[in-house]
Amino acid sequence: MDTIVSSSNQPALFSRSINLRIVSPIKSDDKSRNVYVTVEFQTGSSMQTEFILKLTDEDDPFFLYELHLNVDDFKNLKRDQGVLVDFNAFPQHVIDYLKLCIRDQHNETTPSNGSRFQLQLVNDEQQFTNQTHLRVVEISSFKHLTHLSLLVTSANDHEIKNYLARRLQSKTTDYNQLSNDFEKLKRELESTQLDLKEKTANFQKLKLEWDSNNNQIVGRHMQELAEEKEKALQ
Amino acid sequence: MDTIVSSSNQPALFSRSINLRIVSPIKSDDKSRNVYVTVEFQTGSSMQTEFILKLTDEDDPFFLYELHLNVDDFKNLKRDQGVLVDFNAFPQHVIDYLKLCIRDQHNETTPSNGSRFQLQLVNDEQQFTNQTHLRVVEISSFKHLTHLSLLVTSANDHEIKNYLARRLQSKTTDYNQLSNDFEKLKRELESTQLDLKEKTANFQKLKLEWDSNNNQIVGRHMQELAEEKEKALQ
Repeated sequence: MDTIVSSSNQPALFSRSINLRIVSPIKSDDKSRNVYVTVEFQTGSSMQTEFILKLTDEDDPFFLYELHLNVDDFKNLKRDQGVLVDFNAFPQHVIDYLKLCIRDQHNETTPSNGSRFQLQLVNDEQQFTNQTHLRVVEISSFKHLTHLSLLVTSANDHEIKNYLARRLQSKTTDYNQLSNDFEKLKRELESTQLDLKEKTANFQKLKLEWDSNNNQIVGRHMQELAEEKEKALQ
Repeated sequence: MDTIVSSSNQPALFSRSINLRIVSPIKSDDKSRNVYVTVEFQTGSSMQTEFILKLTDEDDPFFLYELHLNVDDFKNLKRDQGVLVDFNAFPQHVIDYLKLCIRDQHNETTPSNGSRFQLQLVNDEQQFTNQTHLRVVEISSFKHLTHLSLLVTSANDHEIKNYLARRLQSKTTDYNQLSNDFEKLKRELESTQLDLKEKTANFQKLKLEWDSNNNQIVGRHMQELAEEKEKALQ
């Protein structure tokens, strides 16, 4: 899955399917969908290390949200949300949160004496800014507690175009690989079928040979027996 | 291939790989590449019939040129290029030209007593309009004769995005189909291998049985022979 959303040669730190709750403050009907969340931490051509988070959907080619965070952006996030860890430690903390969301994603109800984690995509439409945040929310019987809120942006046509080209390339590579494997398997099947045919033919042939051989032995013995009987009569 | 570039459910009239000559009036080094040319003639949601021509490249996801021609556009083309046929007959004439280009695409030289057809993509960069024309050109030893010149437009990000989504969908469908076929073939191979193993085991088993049976027959006859000899001695 990594190759689908990864724009570099470095492998993603994390790429898993997670149930995402789509929350709209002005609409009461929340929806949820399974999306792929990919976390990368990489040094680009500008030699600047970036924390990159992507939301994609296998079934919806136009669903693509991204967050690119460099060390300066992170300073703001650290201040605004009271984060204590440094930039290098940040990706693993995000991944740990995502794993908590995966752990709890099939719990529809909150345990009475505990809490559950949920990943939410929140459209702040009421603020007229049309900003979208990805939130890790802990739901207890007491309240909704936002542990982390990351501003993500919906990709534009140009970005989706590039993303789809990578997905297409990846799918084409997979297809060609499978096609090769298929041909290999086909040849193996043909060869095995030929072996089976040969074995069956040999089986029949040998059976005939044994029958004929058997008749010969019986014939020879009958003859020897007759000769012996004749000798005895003389 | 149709599904890759077709935006409707109606099948394309024509979809073939053709060697396309990329001609730039200001650059002397012409290049050529194999592209897919797709011709559609369809009635869209606006109930207006359109002649649609698309140029795509399997290996270059961002290569997409399009021409959409309705009956009014066609009137201009008819007047400008002295075309005599009507709108409904136009697609077949274009297709016939494309087939001539395919027929001649491996002829590098012009026959001395004849001519050859070539499909060209011409960037009119020198006119500062940056227009691109798809031209069907007949090359004889005398001159280059343009039979048809169609103004095509390079697709923008939004169009390429939609085109790639369709290609991805099509490739995914193909992949899933192949994956099913692969699993089917795998089961068939496993079953055939099992048959072969069984047949080999039966073969060995029967061989042992025949050997033992044979020994029994020989043994019995030796005994009968001995008994007969003994009788003769008495």
